[in-house]
Parts: sequence; structure tokens; C-alpha cells
Amino acid sequence: MTSPLHAGLDAHFAALERFLREQVDAFEPEVRPMVTEVLAHPGKRLRPLLAFSAGAGGEPTLSLVRGAAIVELVHLATLVHDDVLDGADTRHGADTPNRTHGAHAAVLFGDALFAHALMLAAEHTTPELCRIVARASREVCSGEVCQTFSRGNDRLSLDDYYRHIRLKTAELFEGACRVGALLAGRPPEHITACATFGRHLGIAYQIYDDLVDLLQDDAKAGKTLGTDAASGKLTLPMLLERERSGPAVLAALRRGEDPRTCVSAETWRESFRLLDAEIAAAEAALTPIAGSPSPFFLLRLTAFLREAAARLAPRA
Amino acid sequence: MTSPLHAGLDAHFAALERFLREQVDAFEPEVRPMVTEVLAHPGKRLRPLLAFSAGAGGEPTLSLVRGAAIVELVHLATLVHDDVLDGADTRHGADTPNRTHGAHAAVLFGDALFAHALMLAAEHTTPELCRIVARASREVCSGEVCQTFSRGNDRLSLDDYYRHIRLKTAELFEGACRVGALLAGRPPEHITACATFGRHLGIAYQIYDDLVDLLQDDAKAGKTLGTDAASGKLTLPMLLERERSGPAVLAALRRGEDPRTCVSAETWRESFRLLDAEIAAAEAALTPIAGSPSPFFLLRLTAFLREAAARLAPRA
Repeated sequence: MTSPLHAGLDAHFAALERFLREQVDAFEPEVRPMVTEVLAHPGKRLRPLLAFSAGAGGEPTLSLVRGAAIVELVHLATLVHDDVLDGADTRHGADTPNRTHGAHAAVLFGDALFAHALMLAAEHTTPELCRIVARASREVCSGEVCQTFSRGNDRLSLDDYYRHIRLKTAELFEGACRVGALLAGRPPEHITACATFGRHLGIAYQIYDDLVDLLQDDAKAGKTLGTDAASGKLTLPMLLERERSGPAVLAALRRGEDPRTCVSAETWRESFRLLDAEIAAAEAALTPIAGSPSPFFLLRLTAFLREAAARLAPRA
Repeated sequence: MTSPLHAGLDAHFAALERFLREQVDAFEPEVRPMVTEVLAHPGKRLRPLLAFSAGAGGEPTLSLVRGAAIVELVHLATLVHDDVLDGADTRHGADTPNRTHGAHAAVLFGDALFAHALMLAAEHTTPELCRIVARASREVCSGEVCQTFSRGNDRLSLDDYYRHIRLKTAELFEGACRVGALLAGRPPEHITACATFGRHLGIAYQIYDDLVDLLQDDAKAGKTLGTDAASGKLTLPMLLERERSGPAVLAALRRGEDPRTCVSAETWRESFRLLDAEIAAAEAALTPIAGSPSPFFLLRLTAFLREAAARLAPRA
């Protein structure tokens, strides 16, 4: 949260944390400790960062801060459910609701958290905010359903892969940008530019995340190499390699063979090229609003992702 | 669905089923079969019935039908999650999403269904509809969290019991009435009267349901006697008997002893008296709108519940 990506938005993030803490009392006494717990160990607050960046150039108004809180609460609700479904015991170094309170309470708590986010969205003067947030939430969950059903489907198409990651990740990135620009009172072309940026950044971020799973096995990432492949999840390099050399690579990866040896150099290059294309598309989307403060903040995110990709590429 | 409670609202319910079926295509292709499945085996459509009754006296406008669909979709989403958490294989004679598609997809599908309901609510011209639906949804889930945490807590107070059932059941009943009256364009006093009716009916309905669990063991209800007590859930007669004769009754019920012998006649009478008080409060709430068409429809619901209670009482 004190990363260079957040620089210049300190007042915004201080107001966000204050606002989030104030939400605790809106819940029933029995539910409050669960809210406090999920707020106590923040992640990167990436979606609020997108909202604040898309709405940058002014004070952190209550409306903008509330919008940033809403997209974070939706994200937290999905994490609570993900942790139940994955049986995850810890996140950000703390016990998950699932671990502390059991799957039963955790599923219902995720629901309540999500509903609370929508209640906050309904405080806006028009239904526009509810529309954006409800839509993004539906798409995130639909994307996860699609991905669940596609596990082990060796014939998954590249188009479906892109559709699934758009739904699962890019829709809420886009929604966060849209919410920030809308609540900062920016004109329609600013909202559209930021929304398009968010969508491409979300796709790029998910491709990067999928590449990390195949290439980065150090303790820092807290991941074992190729867990996606082992669980039957097909990601970009696997699909590209299947197109190139046939389905044998999928079986090899599933058996636990090293991705760096069974995926060809050409496929890795193509994967990084496609990642870069999304980053470039995100950046290009900002051209029409080049004179506003938002690109300064948003382009730090693409620069950061491009550097991370450059560090990852030599591992392939 | 062809019960006497629905008489006179045939056009409304036909429009509702059409509207619900039309929602299927709004979902991703992979998710559509799940939507079709949960719609194919309707329950009592009780919440739409409340919405239509509170908004009775005119045509089933798109707005009113959409409102009724929204409260049903929220209810269906909670059922999908309940069935995952209870490991239930069937509901209304059909396989649950949990059974057909696994817990993972079912939790995420419940989320998507709920988010879709909020998207529909955001189609209303003001955020009022989102506010009602999001609030009711949060309270339903919070109530279920509270009830989960209170399992096995022999010191649960009567106040907490009432608060939990208000959250779990009455908030969505109230919300459904509010939605129907609002979308039929009724004045504030009509909305308030119907909302108050819904809240008391919801509490009454839950007390009745809790009584059924302790008194009605026939195959028709598809229930074994005293499953609540066995699972550590404390309901009204148990709490009243604990006040009267001490906590021994809770242990006895948990051991599987027959509720009809270990709960005193005085306690059963008091339980039915409290149920009747809620039914009476629901009916009294309609006095200010006695001249409108809504009481005709709403009072059928309290009459139905009162008759059901009268059939149940001799079993005590």
C-alpha cells in the first residue's frame, strides 16, 4: 500500500481506509468481527487505485472514496468465496474467514459483504453506479463459473480463454476505472478512455498472472510451478503450444513436467507478445485524455506490469 | 403456483415466468443451463406473490413484473447457497446446482444470480429499488450468519431469536412488499403499510416453520421431527421452555427426545399465541389502506397461515 504506484494519492487512500473501517458498524454485532478481520490485512487495493487514478486531479470526495470502497468490497467478497472454494487457510498472512469461522459462515458473510457494497452503490443519486457494480460483479462470478467448467477441457479455444479472463478479471478492472471517472465528474470520453484502459490492463494482468504460475517458482510469489496445469486449468502458453505442437503438451504439464522445457521458445515469445499487445492497447486508450491527470497515474500501472513482464521473460 | 393464494393474479404470474425465462440469455452460454434449471422447478413464488399483492389493482407492468422477478432471484440465489452449505441434493423434486455442477460452480452461480438481480434493480429510474433489494439481501445473509454462529449457544436470548428471524426471513418479505407497492406507484402510506405487513408476516412465517420442525413429522413436509434441535438451532418453543423450566429441555431435545413430551403445554400455547400476535400485527398494519385492492390479496396470506397454525396446534 506504500508502493510507488500509490504515490500522490495518500489522502485518497487514508480516506479509503477510514471509510472502510466505518462500514463495520453497519453490520450486525455478530458479523462485525468478520468485517474487521478482512479489512485488517489489505492487499494491494488495486481496484481502488484504478478508481482513484481514473478520477485523479481533485480532492478525495466522499462520493469518490465510497466508489473506491465499493469496488474493493466486491473484490473482497469474491476473495472470501474463493478461499472457501479453494479451502485456503491464509491470505495476506492472516487466517481466512473460512479458516476462522468455517465455510458455512464464510459463504454467507461473502454474500453480506457483496450486498453491502451494492447498498453503498445505491446511495449514489442515480442508479448508474449500481448498474456498473452489479454488472461487473455478475461478470466476475460468471467468468469464474466458466473457468470452473472449462477445467480439464483440452479443447478450450483461445477465444474462450480470452473471454473467461475478461469476465473474471478485466470486467472489475474496467468497472473500477468507470466508477472513479464517473464519481469524479469526468466527461463521457474520459470515462470511456479509462474504462477501455481498465479492460486491457485487466486482461494483461491476468495473462501475466498465468505466466507467473508457469515460470516463477520462488518462495516470494508463494507459488509452486504449474499449479494451474496440475489442476486442469488451461492458460495462454498452454493453448498456444497446443495449437503449435498438438495436445501432448497438456498431458506433459499435467504430469508435472517443467513448463520451461515442454513449452517451446516460440510459444513463450508469442505469449509475451500478446501480453505486451494488451499493455499497449491499454496505453493507447488514454491518448484522447492525454492532457488530464489520469494518464500520469494509470500509466504507472502499465509501466509496472511491463517491467514485471521483462523480469519474468528470461525465465522462459 | 396454482394455489388459491395466487387466484386473480394469473396474468401477473404468467408475465413473471416469461420475464424470468427471458433472463437466461443475459448469462454466459456456460451459465445458462444452470439458470434454466433453477427456474424450471418453481417453489411457491411467495416473494413475487407479496410484491404483486402489495402492488395489486392494475396491470402487470414491466416494472412491477421485473420487481417481482428481482425478489425471486435474490431468494433463489440464497437457496442455491443454502443447498451448497447443507449439502442438499434435491429441492422441489429436482437436483440442486450443487448436486449437478458441484459446490464450486454452485457458490459462484449463486453470486452471479444475485448480481443479476441487482443489475435488474439498477434498470429502475431511481436507486430506490437497488437500495431496498441490496438492504434486504444483506440482512438475509447477515441473519443466516448470526444463526450459524448461534448454533449450540444455549444462552441465546429471545430478543436475539426474534432479531435473527427478522433478518433471515422478514427483511426480504418486507422488501418484496415494498418493491411491489413502490413499482405500482402507490403512495408512501401504502408502501409503509405493506412493508409492515410483510415484516410481521415474515416473522410469523418463520415461527410457524420452526413449529413445524418440532411438531410435524409426516412425509408430506419431507422433514424429520426436531432436526433444528438436533443441529443445535434454538427456536421459539425451546427458548420459552428454557425460561420456564431451565436448560434441561435443550439437552433432552438434542438427545432426540420427542418435543411433544419434553415441552410443556403452557409453552406450546405461548408459542402459538406469539405466532398469532405476529399474524394479528400484520393484519392490523393494513388498516390505513383498507379501501385499496392490496388487503384483499395480502389477507389471504395471513388467513392461510392462521389455518395452517390451527391444524398444527393439536399436535402439540
